[in-house]
Amino acid sequence: MPEDITYNQSIIKYSDGHYIEQTDDIATEFPLTLYVNQQEFATIVCSPTNLHELVLGFLASEGVIFRRADIKDIHIDDSKGFCHIILNREIEQHYGQYTKRMISSCCGKSRQFYFVNDAATSKVSLTDKTVTAAEIFKMMNALQTESTDFKQTGGLHNAAISDGKDFYIHRSDIGRHNALDKLFGYCIEQRIPIRDKVLIFSGRISSEILIKASKIGVGIILSKSAPTDLAIKLASDLNITAVGFIRNESFNIYSHAERIK
Amino acid sequence: MPEDITYNQSIIKYSDGHYIEQTDDIATEFPLTLYVNQQEFATIVCSPTNLHELVLGFLASEGVIFRRADIKDIHIDDSKGFCHIILNREIEQHYGQYTKRMISSCCGKSRQFYFVNDAATSKVSLTDKTVTAAEIFKMMNALQTESTDFKQTGGLHNAAISDGKDFYIHRSDIGRHNALDKLFGYCIEQRIPIRDKVLIFSGRISSEILIKASKIGVGIILSKSAPTDLAIKLASDLNITAVGFIRNESFNIYSHAERIK
Repeated sequence: MPEDITYNQSIIKYSDGHYIEQTDDIATEFPLTLYVNQQEFATIVCSPTNLHELVLGFLASEGVIFRRADIKDIHIDDSKGFCHIILNREIEQHYGQYTKRMISSCCGKSRQFYFVNDAATSKVSLTDKTVTAAEIFKMMNALQTESTDFKQTGGLHNAAISDGKDFYIHRSDIGRHNALDKLFGYCIEQRIPIRDKVLIFSGRISSEILIKASKIGVGIILSKSAPTDLAIKLASDLNITAVGFIRNESFNIYSHAERIK
Repeated sequence: MPEDITYNQSIIKYSDGHYIEQTDDIATEFPLTLYVNQQEFATIVCSPTNLHELVLGFLASEGVIFRRADIKDIHIDDSKGFCHIILNREIEQHYGQYTKRMISSCCGKSRQFYFVNDAATSKVSLTDKTVTAAEIFKMMNALQTESTDFKQTGGLHNAAISDGKDFYIHRSDIGRHNALDKLFGYCIEQRIPIRDKVLIFSGRISSEILIKASKIGVGIILSKSAPTDLAIKLASDLNITAVGFIRNESFNIYSHAERIK
């Protein structure tokens, strides 16, 4: 396994007409293959930190586990990039179907889903959590301040879960989804209730990111960047407040503005 | 199908202590499900432009087709988001395996692959194409200038293929891979030789993007952003020149600097 989230690499820099050799901080990328009940399940390409949390969050997000107790044994071989998970039950047959296109709209939640698995595992938010504009700026500033590795390498996505007050957990990854899965896994492992928390994300809110937020169970997602149209429709349907383009003294509210006080 | 790559959405903007309603340009997101020989193959979530090119590039990138003539019939139903492709032969059995983890290093190309399919379809570059610093800045400026939708929505990845001189084709998509697949599909459809071309990309060079560049067949990839460690190793092994952090008058060369004159 690479030792850290970044490492030093020698490069050739061109600047103002001259070539010079120097070293640069580069984001590491690590493939981790999951075997569930001895069957190959998926390969996650990730930053090699918080792998245990990543695996828990990924499996919960895919609907393979619903709580920590669903896992009988978990063993990560980080020298080879393998993770062996034994569940307390059979893995359900429909997992061959987990990237199948969603055709009907009978799930009762949103017509915007395109994968069967997402429709099955996403949740309509029931939170009554609200935040103020001041809390929104405070949480986004905290994310920016902690994202030093991103500034060094230009290669990492950052995400955090916070209650807008004292609770604040930050994770980084080269993969957008992985940063969120690490947060999800942390909350599962530590049995932290998510309904009253807010998700803060460095990247664009695509439909996949919005679906992930819904699976995690937050009712508010904050981003520096923009959402897509499908993400906005899903946010409306799943009762999630999506706030984007958070800059110095401004932000945009795309759905469920009633949670911003 | 959404009509365009972006659309207008009404939002609530908070600015300097006031909330106002306004409209904003939002990137659209469109799920397209591919059926190959009447079997569901994959769902691509994309910007709804150049879908024909996208499908060709995606299938070539996955190793399902090797040339345009491998396709007997292709029909895109863009009202429902389905694409039916009939090949001139059976789809090979190993496609159930196409995201299987690569275990051995016997492919003779790179030990850095993590998927069987990537090891099978990536190519070691044999190009003798070179570029000058001036051409690098010119190509990146062209990409930036054409990326007006990105500036409007903050949500699109941009990519182009160029020879550094007159030939220049630009594509945009909400998905990093899709922008590259659209370029790949264009070159397949138009029978444009790729070996003497350069790939210019707005985003980070991850291992997946580097592998995609190798499948397309370019020997040089330029990016505004940084590569990852695995991308640099793959670039070294696959004989690809990776140039990143292209800014005003500077850039970094991460591999095969001999192609920069």
